[in-house]
Amino acid sequence: MRMVDLIEKKRDGKALTTEEIQFVIDGYTKGAIPDYQMSAFAMAVFFQDMNEQERADLTMAMVQSGDTIDLSAIEGIKVDKHSTGGVGDTTTLVLGPLVASLGVPVAKMSGRGLGHTGGTIDKLESISGFHVEISNDEFIQLVNEHKLAVIGQSGNLTPADKKLYALRDVTGTVNSIPLIASSIMSKKIAAGADAICLDVKTGAGAFMKTIEGSRELAQAMVNIGNSVGRKTMAVISDMSQPLGFAVGNALEVREAIDTLRGVGPEDLTELCLTLGSHMVVLAEKASSLEEARQLLLESIKTGKAIEKFKTFLRAQGGDDSIVDDPSKLPQAPFTIELPAKEDGYVSEIVADEIGIAAMLLGAGRATKESTIDLSVGIVLHKKIGDKVKKGESLLTIHANQENVVEVKQKLYSNIKISKEKIEAPILIHEEITL
Amino acid sequence: MRMVDLIEKKRDGKALTTEEIQFVIDGYTKGAIPDYQMSAFAMAVFFQDMNEQERADLTMAMVQSGDTIDLSAIEGIKVDKHSTGGVGDTTTLVLGPLVASLGVPVAKMSGRGLGHTGGTIDKLESISGFHVEISNDEFIQLVNEHKLAVIGQSGNLTPADKKLYALRDVTGTVNSIPLIASSIMSKKIAAGADAICLDVKTGAGAFMKTIEGSRELAQAMVNIGNSVGRKTMAVISDMSQPLGFAVGNALEVREAIDTLRGVGPEDLTELCLTLGSHMVVLAEKASSLEEARQLLLESIKTGKAIEKFKTFLRAQGGDDSIVDDPSKLPQAPFTIELPAKEDGYVSEIVADEIGIAAMLLGAGRATKESTIDLSVGIVLHKKIGDKVKKGESLLTIHANQENVVEVKQKLYSNIKISKEKIEAPILIHEEITL
Repeated sequence: MRMVDLIEKKRDGKALTTEEIQFVIDGYTKGAIPDYQMSAFAMAVFFQDMNEQERADLTMAMVQSGDTIDLSAIEGIKVDKHSTGGVGDTTTLVLGPLVASLGVPVAKMSGRGLGHTGGTIDKLESISGFHVEISNDEFIQLVNEHKLAVIGQSGNLTPADKKLYALRDVTGTVNSIPLIASSIMSKKIAAGADAICLDVKTGAGAFMKTIEGSRELAQAMVNIGNSVGRKTMAVISDMSQPLGFAVGNALEVREAIDTLRGVGPEDLTELCLTLGSHMVVLAEKASSLEEARQLLLESIKTGKAIEKFKTFLRAQGGDDSIVDDPSKLPQAPFTIELPAKEDGYVSEIVADEIGIAAMLLGAGRATKESTIDLSVGIVLHKKIGDKVKKGESLLTIHANQENVVEVKQKLYSNIKISKEKIEAPILIHEEITL
Repeated sequence: MRMVDLIEKKRDGKALTTEEIQFVIDGYTKGAIPDYQMSAFAMAVFFQDMNEQERADLTMAMVQSGDTIDLSAIEGIKVDKHSTGGVGDTTTLVLGPLVASLGVPVAKMSGRGLGHTGGTIDKLESISGFHVEISNDEFIQLVNEHKLAVIGQSGNLTPADKKLYALRDVTGTVNSIPLIASSIMSKKIAAGADAICLDVKTGAGAFMKTIEGSRELAQAMVNIGNSVGRKTMAVISDMSQPLGFAVGNALEVREAIDTLRGVGPEDLTELCLTLGSHMVVLAEKASSLEEARQLLLESIKTGKAIEKFKTFLRAQGGDDSIVDDPSKLPQAPFTIELPAKEDGYVSEIVADEIGIAAMLLGAGRATKESTIDLSVGIVLHKKIGDKVKKGESLLTIHANQENVVEVKQKLYSNIKISKEKIEAPILIHEEITL
């Protein structure tokens, strides 16, 4: 087999066989196939797409390019949740304890990563004493005991995907459904989940800006997952504005606590109930979505959910007293309000730009070497559709310095106020199953 | 400017500016742009094409990537001829002396190259004493004196094209009209010609298999040449079967001599008269194609053409007595006939495969290091449409060993004989000017 022939085959719109895709990914991982052939191949895929079998084959070839996690020692159906990424997405912090409180095992492998705020681990590390440096055995034991544990990424998972993603990033081949879908799914499958619940964001603050694009990506991932034996479904949710109110690390922990107590932001709560219901059904802890939702609501109402969060924190060394006294979380020295300049209705809150504002405050990493300020961020008081009066605060900036002129400018120019009444955006656009 | 943005711009079907194309080619030549970005870019061009301005810009950027030849010291309009390559293409050997005999200056820079037979220089070196190791000054002086000289490729001409071509070869991006056209035209323009006559081959033995593809390529090159100030035209000629009878180095020299004397193969003679007429008109040595053709025919008839060939050979150290006694050319020790196995009409002579048969005999180079046997090759006795009787020789194999079983097999399986009468293929399909 010669790579140049496979490039031409794909270029000419033909489907590659399982063996051909294995040859490509195996050769690329080992360095036998050079970057310049792989980038030409990726561009050919961009234009010619891949059929469902090719997408599944590509995913599994990337899974097999490195280590895979064996979660078989954990009892029950392990359900993983994945979000395609947005701004102020606190769902993981809420969903973990929420579904674990119903006996769904959540074995979460998480990273720090780059972005507007830190990753799940960074957020949790704003809780004094909490740590993810646990052994694999300890991890499995914790999940069996408490149904919830978080561990840092270890092992050489999907090296083909890492290498290919870095290449795509500099060769104009990121935005390809088969390549995005196989990249995400390979990581989820290598991480060992039995079932996968996907939260595909859509709108200005999402990777996929249109509902059509999001639907195509969601369907592609659902098809891949199910065709390789992992029960997979997807929710398409709004990311035209940030989710919930908080954008920041400790600020999002606080918001998660509120939500687990039943007093969180409406949209965050609703999305967690939607995703959570699917997770509970996938884990076969309820036989219908309605039943699952009732169980989740009860868990919040009775305090089971917030108790699970405390247990989880304690089990990984965290100070669970922050749950009852969130003022113990890192707090920024300066809080600055952003007063509305006119009366009207909030018509636009550009999610991406709010995220960048939070990053400018120090909440996220621009490069791997950046350090995060866990205390800083933004807390919205108004969301799209809300009525606002001139002088009323749109949001609070939590900063580690008094001078936030640049951030305020960015925020003002990315929050629009309209004279006309505006409808709040739809939160859950679609739910996609096989 | 960032290469990734330019890849995406082309990927999305937008036209690049002159500056952007210069940035790409300049960066790639210098190594600032890596192969993996260039191959993704080339694949994007494959799918999205380039408009006429981009093609001209790409060509000129490649011209400017290295040295250019200054032929201004040569009097008159320097006309270069270029063939896209085929099997048994002896036109250059004939056309040089033929048009030079009418005062058209032919300053030929040529290579050895890979292929079924050697390049023009290899063929000429089958003439005892002939050499191309002359200085640039000597070259110019020879052209001014005799209107014809051949020199080996020197200098760092179009390094961008060399680098890009090698990359395209292994990344499935060879077959792209803007990339092929700019590659050919950049070399011709850097070599300093004022006017360019292109012979675009079409058919089974050509790079372009269809008349549509050949027309598209021809038009692309004609447009590029004229838009950068070089008078350019193209002839689309048949390459479904080998041109002329001879495929081999010394064998083609012999055929060129026959043709210059007016007793060469009909198709080779006609193609040389067609291309030659255009060259004479481009050089402004005749005001119409009809006039040019008359002058060329006269030159052959009166012996001016063959005398010019002798003069040219002597001027570069060659033994011109081979013209009157071609038996002095290298001769293969074995000549083996290939008798027809049945009566009928020749319906197919697969040019490519005949070329490979010649290469198997030793006439061409498979790698740069291969040595050529200048004596060996094939001389056809029958062409498509010719009537043939069982036992009659289809061709003579000139070999340096008696055992040519493999070559005979290949030849038999690539020459088809039909019971029904077959028409000879059209030789000149189209003539394309601006």
